Amino acid sequence: MEGEKLGAAVAGLWAEVRELSLGTSPRIDVLDTPPSPLVFLRDYVSANKPCLVRGGAAHWPAVSRSLWSHDSYLAAILGKDRHVSLHLTPDGRADALAPLPDGDDDSNLCFASACVRRAPFAAALRLIAASGRDPTSPVVAYAQEQNDCFRAAAEYGGSALAADVEEEVPWATAALGCSPEAVNLWVGSGRSETSFHKDHYENLYAVVTGEKHFLLLPPTDVHRLYVRRYLAARYVSSSAAAATTAGVEELKLELEEPRREVPWCSVDPYPRTPKEAARAREEMPLYFQGPPPFQCTVRAGDILYLPSMWFHHVRQTPDSSGRTIAVNFWYDMRFDIKYAYFNLLQTIEYPPPSRDPPSGEEEPGDGPPVERRRNGSLCV
Amino acid sequence: MEGEKLGAAVAGLWAEVRELSLGTSPRIDVLDTPPSPLVFLRDYVSANKPCLVRGGAAHWPAVSRSLWSHDSYLAAILGKDRHVSLHLTPDGRADALAPLPDGDDDSNLCFASACVRRAPFAAALRLIAASGRDPTSPVVAYAQEQNDCFRAAAEYGGSALAADVEEEVPWATAALGCSPEAVNLWVGSGRSETSFHKDHYENLYAVVTGEKHFLLLPPTDVHRLYVRRYLAARYVSSSAAAATTAGVEELKLELEEPRREVPWCSVDPYPRTPKEAARAREEMPLYFQGPPPFQCTVRAGDILYLPSMWFHHVRQTPDSSGRTIAVNFWYDMRFDIKYAYFNLLQTIEYPPPSRDPPSGEEEPGDGPPVERRRNGSLCV
Repeated sequence: MEGEKLGAAVAGLWAEVRELSLGTSPRIDVLDTPPSPLVFLRDYVSANKPCLVRGGAAHWPAVSRSLWSHDSYLAAILGKDRHVSLHLTPDGRADALAPLPDGDDDSNLCFASACVRRAPFAAALRLIAASGRDPTSPVVAYAQEQNDCFRAAAEYGGSALAADVEEEVPWATAALGCSPEAVNLWVGSGRSETSFHKDHYENLYAVVTGEKHFLLLPPTDVHRLYVRRYLAARYVSSSAAAATTAGVEELKLELEEPRREVPWCSVDPYPRTPKEAARAREEMPLYFQGPPPFQCTVRAGDILYLPSMWFHHVRQTPDSSGRTIAVNFWYDMRFDIKYAYFNLLQTIEYPPPSRDPPSGEEEPGDGPPVERRRNGSLCV
Repeated sequence: MEGEKLGAAVAGLWAEVRELSLGTSPRIDVLDTPPSPLVFLRDYVSANKPCLVRGGAAHWPAVSRSLWSHDSYLAAILGKDRHVSLHLTPDGRADALAPLPDGDDDSNLCFASACVRRAPFAAALRLIAASGRDPTSPVVAYAQEQNDCFRAAAEYGGSALAADVEEEVPWATAALGCSPEAVNLWVGSGRSETSFHKDHYENLYAVVTGEKHFLLLPPTDVHRLYVRRYLAARYVSSSAAAATTAGVEELKLELEEPRREVPWCSVDPYPRTPKEAARAREEMPLYFQGPPPFQCTVRAGDILYLPSMWFHHVRQTPDSSGRTIAVNFWYDMRFDIKYAYFNLLQTIEYPPPSRDPPSGEEEPGDGPPVERRRNGSLCV
């Protein structure tokens, strides 16, 4: 069929899903009380539509007694010998695009993963807050291992921390018919930021202290995020002390060997400089000139339902201790007709490629099979 | 993008939705007890997946006491003066493709609607059974007005018939969060047949007496049904008596004036002659050479969940009285992301049109807005 007609249909899809189901404002539904399992399933999960449950976790002791705002409490409850994984980056942006190492042009980007170090929990807490408070700190720390870390013995599992929260979200468990596949803890600062990506899970995201600011785009908007393949790179430290103390003084970015490519969203919704902003608007008009993303601030005690396959970008505001702490529950998604439709949508090249496409700009339609972050891989 | 790549993606969609969700056999899930509202919503409605609830209506007095197999009971309960709508066709196929009137080539088809007559209910019952039993009868009668006829005062409403069935399907009402938008009664015979079409409703279809044989295809298979536009026509009778007694002796097909076109599925899964079968296989290979439709026989007391937007073709086997009687419940569907995806899919021309397409073979992608049968219109 003609490219123009198909293009109009793709743009029509962005509009129609908003008009029919999501709404045309950038707001998502806010519920003042937890939904019944039936309502949650019917109005949100089945419709693949986000909602914010205000105060959905307000009864957790971690929230109601503000337990997790205190270093002394957290350090005591986890014990002196507990080591956890800490993700270190120069700017708070792990799993994000960054200029190619040794590149002479900032517009050539790669996919940069954090430098991961094990650190004693008390030290990790201090480093997260300190590096978040100091905008000149050359290293930003974020504790955010997405491997069921809240329950994993190698991270936070087996501690009394579990008693401060619910082990699952009861109405979500009832609606989805299963317990969470993974429960993750996120301890970050105001400098931590998560770039646009999606997960193959139904996500219940509870903020315990501080605030998280989400930008959300439905899977139907996949073309608006300009998913492209980028060379994988990783931050490394030359400091010998780093391996044991997380006392990293400087990070440098190195391309992974052997080289491999990762499909990732090209859109950074908050360009750092006017030059970057101008370039982004010109190169990615579908995002910057199309319907705005849905926006949502999740405050302490709130639970966000982030539907499977939705693209999300996250920034955070810390509490008085300098940290934002969240617990998220990943429930298995159903790979049903919606998922099959999404895969079809992904194979459509939009906007149509030019006759001489620049290298590295292939669409990932026929890319490798789904990789899940839990298994140590990344999925865009 | 290249047509071949997109074509492969459309064919990939047919396979993927089966592999992930529907299953690769032509069978649908059969449940021996009614599902809980949560399970029904999660496993079937949300997934847009059919299921058969064996015995789901077995407790209805109409079924358990076989009340509706008896002319005397039905006639008595509806009263002497009750008139109902009767759909008359020469072959049992209303809302189906038929050779153009006065055409000299059987391959030129139009969309033929029934001749609709009001008839006293007792006479209608007799005519339905008699015309179904006699394969040479030039008129086949089918009582099947789809305008909430079971509850409408002008048809079956206000009678004691309602006490013989449940007024809704409780687990479906709980799951879908609303009562039925329409309840329809279908009184047909072994010669009545319904051609492939879809409805914009969640459909709970209960057979009371006799059997119904469904062929089902998911909305993702839309291209396999070769939806094309056909001139609308209607069967009319020249018999003056017809208007009051339904004593129609002969029907002829007339094109509607002013002319209008109706998009309809071109596939007849049961060609009448070897010549028709050969032509169908050649002209519609996507249907005849692709994955077989899901098949399901709904027996007296069973309830079929027929998901919104699924294409279905129906034949029937009568009970000993010569009739098949069913009640179906149309619940409002959610026009959510699945529906938006379907509309995108419909805009894809597949297989790609030849450079010189024959007239009358346009795809309906940009056709008129959805028309609902309830409002007196037809939706393919």
